[in-house]
Amino acid sequence: MAEHVQIREVGPRDGLQLISKMLPAEQKLEWCRRAREAGMEEVEVTSFVPPSVVPQFADAAEVARGAVALGGFTAAALVPNLKGAQRAIESGIRKVNYVLSASEAHNQANVRRSTQQSLDNFKDIIDYRKGLPGDQAARLKIAGGIATSFGCTISGVVPEARVLDIAAKYLEMGADELIIADTVGYGNPAQVRRLMSAVLKEAGSVPVACHFHDTFALGLANVTAALEAGVRAFDSAVGGLGGCPFAPGASGNINTEDTVYLVESLGFETGIDIAALLELRREVESWLPGERFTGSVARAGLPKTFMRSSNAP
Amino acid sequence: MAEHVQIREVGPRDGLQLISKMLPAEQKLEWCRRAREAGMEEVEVTSFVPPSVVPQFADAAEVARGAVALGGFTAAALVPNLKGAQRAIESGIRKVNYVLSASEAHNQANVRRSTQQSLDNFKDIIDYRKGLPGDQAARLKIAGGIATSFGCTISGVVPEARVLDIAAKYLEMGADELIIADTVGYGNPAQVRRLMSAVLKEAGSVPVACHFHDTFALGLANVTAALEAGVRAFDSAVGGLGGCPFAPGASGNINTEDTVYLVESLGFETGIDIAALLELRREVESWLPGERFTGSVARAGLPKTFMRSSNAP
Repeated sequence: MAEHVQIREVGPRDGLQLISKMLPAEQKLEWCRRAREAGMEEVEVTSFVPPSVVPQFADAAEVARGAVALGGFTAAALVPNLKGAQRAIESGIRKVNYVLSASEAHNQANVRRSTQQSLDNFKDIIDYRKGLPGDQAARLKIAGGIATSFGCTISGVVPEARVLDIAAKYLEMGADELIIADTVGYGNPAQVRRLMSAVLKEAGSVPVACHFHDTFALGLANVTAALEAGVRAFDSAVGGLGGCPFAPGASGNINTEDTVYLVESLGFETGIDIAALLELRREVESWLPGERFTGSVARAGLPKTFMRSSNAP
Repeated sequence: MAEHVQIREVGPRDGLQLISKMLPAEQKLEWCRRAREAGMEEVEVTSFVPPSVVPQFADAAEVARGAVALGGFTAAALVPNLKGAQRAIESGIRKVNYVLSASEAHNQANVRRSTQQSLDNFKDIIDYRKGLPGDQAARLKIAGGIATSFGCTISGVVPEARVLDIAAKYLEMGADELIIADTVGYGNPAQVRRLMSAVLKEAGSVPVACHFHDTFALGLANVTAALEAGVRAFDSAVGGLGGCPFAPGASGNINTEDTVYLVESLGFETGIDIAALLELRREVESWLPGERFTGSVARAGLPKTFMRSSNAP
């Protein structure tokens, strides 16, 4: 039996946050529905940032409720603070992905507070969960994300010790998952293998996911390195959509179709149907004319030698 | 001291072979000159295929003579047979890159003979060298290339044993270098690490280079895997130009600028100046309007954290 690797679609959140065209909630939900149909276990469906900051997510509650109602997958939502977490939880969300930045400068630019203040805010969300009714608290997962873990467009190098320190604090406070993010695409495979080995050791039995951007064409090399280190969960967006407001010239998330192709080629099982992903991608592309879509499998088709690991002899 | 990795520009050959616009010999030579200025030790400057097959290389002898006259780098030329090798050697070329295909079907499509016949033709070139004057024979390098080493668009899977068998025959006949090529981009990092480890073991002290295409966005992941296996020479083309006539939808060679960025980021020394490569790329782009150019560093600029290994503390 091939080992399972979880690939999570983050297109409806990270893929859309820089796109000026407002996608209707029905299309965002169609994106979620089709990702689920393709075999995704988890989709980051929206972000509970203030609508004044990212108007694209003014419909966050509507999308969250709709995604939870779809069922059959984990509808996760990004939250920048307690208020966002409360709104997410009220909309029925059972997994909130909190994010802060290892780079002070990036954290200030993003949420106008220090990284330590952001860590304190994470504690507020953990404490808030304790006050929820028992079953609601029990089924709510709170992930701790660390942006700019591999470098920052504003401040440059981010020391690995700093990322490990933040990870330790997240774990101590009770994070249910760590998400180590290369927000601006500065990571290289040697760095990824080194840092992720250390994070996994620190995390013990707590799941660890990676979130890579493909700015310097190293996204899939970094996935390979993280797999070698032992990471078994990755964020990606169909068509490689996405970007970071503080990373000029940066390209988007790693491409979901290409990531599934790589991971299955390496002998892991994702449970995801690439043909269904390619249809989803075409649909999303038709909604967002003029946006930059990446994708090698979308362009070249699958190689003649490709065999899903689940079908391998 | 950082370990040296050789990156060889193959754009004037592999980058151009599918491009219908005839680039004047002066521009091909300008490409070579600027690649040398950027720090390239070796450039594949042309191909001595029959002009009736690839009209782009009708000027092969002129380009070869011009490139040799430039000096300061190894001007290599691709040759498909003894006649091509003779023409190359008469033009002053001191390194001929012979290529055959591990896939019978691909070899037939490419040169209309069996792989074994192509191996026999390699022997003819080796024998021809023996008949050259002593100093000319001594300074002539003959590399043995194996196309479709990681799979074939026509016949699918190419067994690793077959590649190793061809490599052994090349070595036995006296090849001065092996070039293991993923002509259609089917390789994945696990496969690359496995096959290249075996080839390097077989090759002993004979140098081994890899030639990757980026069809499925795995080009740089494959470079990383080959480096880990111990490979220290790679072919690439500025702007990621190139393609294979028998790989529909396939994209081009791995991108030189991005490859240098990756290799230097991993702590190796290439001796190549990325800024000069980017200028070369812009120049080539101006000569070939309408062609597809790839390039992450060209789009995003170098990361704030980037430091050439030769300048690293």
